[in-house]
Amino acid sequence: MSVTQAQGFTAAGVAAGLKSSGAKDVSLVVNTGPKAASAAVFTTNKFAAAPVIWSRQIRLGGDARVVVLNSGGANACTGPPGFADTHATAELVAAGLTARELGEFGAGEVFVCSTGLIGERLDMAALGKGIDLAISRLAPTGGVDAADAIMTTDTQRKISELRGDGYTIGGMAKGAGMLAPGMATMLSVITTDADIDSEFLQHALEFATSQTFDRLDSDGCMSTNDTVILLANAASGASPDPKEFQEALTRVCEDLAQQLMADAEGSTKEIHIEVTGASCESDAVQVGRSVSRSNLFKCAMFGEDPNWGRILSAVGTTSAIFAAYEVDVSINGVKICIGGGVGEDRSAVDLSQRRVDVLIDLHAGVHQAIIRTNDLSIGYVVENSEYST
Amino acid sequence: MSVTQAQGFTAAGVAAGLKSSGAKDVSLVVNTGPKAASAAVFTTNKFAAAPVIWSRQIRLGGDARVVVLNSGGANACTGPPGFADTHATAELVAAGLTARELGEFGAGEVFVCSTGLIGERLDMAALGKGIDLAISRLAPTGGVDAADAIMTTDTQRKISELRGDGYTIGGMAKGAGMLAPGMATMLSVITTDADIDSEFLQHALEFATSQTFDRLDSDGCMSTNDTVILLANAASGASPDPKEFQEALTRVCEDLAQQLMADAEGSTKEIHIEVTGASCESDAVQVGRSVSRSNLFKCAMFGEDPNWGRILSAVGTTSAIFAAYEVDVSINGVKICIGGGVGEDRSAVDLSQRRVDVLIDLHAGVHQAIIRTNDLSIGYVVENSEYST
Repeated sequence: MSVTQAQGFTAAGVAAGLKSSGAKDVSLVVNTGPKAASAAVFTTNKFAAAPVIWSRQIRLGGDARVVVLNSGGANACTGPPGFADTHATAELVAAGLTARELGEFGAGEVFVCSTGLIGERLDMAALGKGIDLAISRLAPTGGVDAADAIMTTDTQRKISELRGDGYTIGGMAKGAGMLAPGMATMLSVITTDADIDSEFLQHALEFATSQTFDRLDSDGCMSTNDTVILLANAASGASPDPKEFQEALTRVCEDLAQQLMADAEGSTKEIHIEVTGASCESDAVQVGRSVSRSNLFKCAMFGEDPNWGRILSAVGTTSAIFAAYEVDVSINGVKICIGGGVGEDRSAVDLSQRRVDVLIDLHAGVHQAIIRTNDLSIGYVVENSEYST
Repeated sequence: MSVTQAQGFTAAGVAAGLKSSGAKDVSLVVNTGPKAASAAVFTTNKFAAAPVIWSRQIRLGGDARVVVLNSGGANACTGPPGFADTHATAELVAAGLTARELGEFGAGEVFVCSTGLIGERLDMAALGKGIDLAISRLAPTGGVDAADAIMTTDTQRKISELRGDGYTIGGMAKGAGMLAPGMATMLSVITTDADIDSEFLQHALEFATSQTFDRLDSDGCMSTNDTVILLANAASGASPDPKEFQEALTRVCEDLAQQLMADAEGSTKEIHIEVTGASCESDAVQVGRSVSRSNLFKCAMFGEDPNWGRILSAVGTTSAIFAAYEVDVSINGVKICIGGGVGEDRSAVDLSQRRVDVLIDLHAGVHQAIIRTNDLSIGYVVENSEYST
């Protein structure tokens, strides 16, 4: 299950005391071979956390075999001392794995991810003990524990598996707030036993995340720690068709992104905003994202009010090409706005279910995109006004 | 008071039945001379409402003498029939004023403004009766009634007056939600008895709004109806120094913008985000606006939690020039972030008052800007999830 669904991976998730709740907070994922290829995408936030700065360098090698992740602290905005902590974490993991004769590991093969409050140093003594414990518990069945140990405000673990043509892809993710990825989202580790080189792996991951995690905009806030890592080890012996692998990987990312949306902080609605008839894909994305970031639209969805004026007012702030008098908007199949004006009866819109489908047709071209978001609820405000206290 | 503080203006505010509450909903402001100069700025939203499309044309004349405003309906996204309603409104006003022998008026001298729900046609029969009633009640003391009649979710009327060197400026505004103006904000009418031509009037108004209303970003949502109109009539006989008039006008706009922030829907905090050390003014504005639009930051303010990581994560999403390890952040005078990392003790920050001052120093130049916003409260969500139902 999770990151150990594919052959040739071990994982563990343990409680190191970084979370005051005593819940699991250190995850470890290890590629046991035979080969090692890796890829990763990261947040574009300029205040990238220390582990992001570290892992960007690790990615360049293309052969990393290990991911260590902690919750209970983001190690972001912690300066050079925080970066030294991340470096020390990778050294501890490499030395520990080597000491237990699990192979010869160097710190340069170890991705590091952290999540939690920004601006606090990690308790390195606790983290060190947690790493030792995690190494001792590494197992081909450890994927679920690993997924549990990266949760913060998540109420559900997020895992996914997919069986390809002779190979397997599995993954885990975390994320419930600060959920508007710029190049990736929150933390996710995906593994596969397919035989793929790191160059193609990187291309495949960039495409898959651009179509999935990057199209999720739950609360408009981009994290300092967003990271998606993909490890491949060829343990299945299968060398998949690149197109088929790309599709499979995109489906796994899609599944994980859906789970993130389903568990978004305080959400009562999962809103799919499909923009069609755009003159280019980036116009479609821009329009969808603008609507997904309108607090007034999101409040209306929470109130189950088909207030399409708030959709148009958000569309109207974009630089997308369209004629205002041609835009149609449907909510859950009812075309309540036709040609930029009043359409079908708004009372026909049923918003009682959790899933909401918004369709915006710009009538300006043939391109489309889907952006996923959530409503803005009282629960979101309550949860995020009490987060660090 | 309000738009009748300056000499040579009459105004009225009456109840026409457009609002289901029976409250006042039609305002009229008339310049009684001797001269007539006018200026206006409008929303940049591509779904500009019918009255905005109309009033943009009126502005080009530079000699409009009348403003008619209604609450109880935005007349936005109503297509050609909605535009015909706006045109008819201006004709009704001009004909009514002429019939009552208040002068010779043409529809081309009448600005029209509307505010309320998007996507609904106005009740023109009710509006017509309201216009007749308003004309009959026009008085040099009508400024307060006029200010009351444009309120929607506002809980307080917004008026301002300023005495210049031999002349007076007075104004009114409305706005409590969809409050993130692109070129102006919501509805505001300002009058002066100074002797100023419409060309300078337009320049002065554009500068004043760019520094005041445009720096207010309460909820990130740009309205389809934002309009600020300025009328001048030379009734005082004073021809002010342009620089002095510019400063006076900016102060009136500033005062009205402050009142908008103070009455923002559901707000419990008024947050002044000052960005200094920017390499250019637009960088400072971009950084301030990014923070003002972070729901996580706004929730933290509601929860009185000095969570500076949420400020940095918002700053980090901008294209502004700065080095992450040089950025300082203070909240209410406590420098809780120094050099992009942990600074003074966060527990020293007192957030119990309504006013919050955030200072972000980018250390990248000499430019600065202030963006004003509010917190994201349970009250905001409640109010905006129940608005149109």
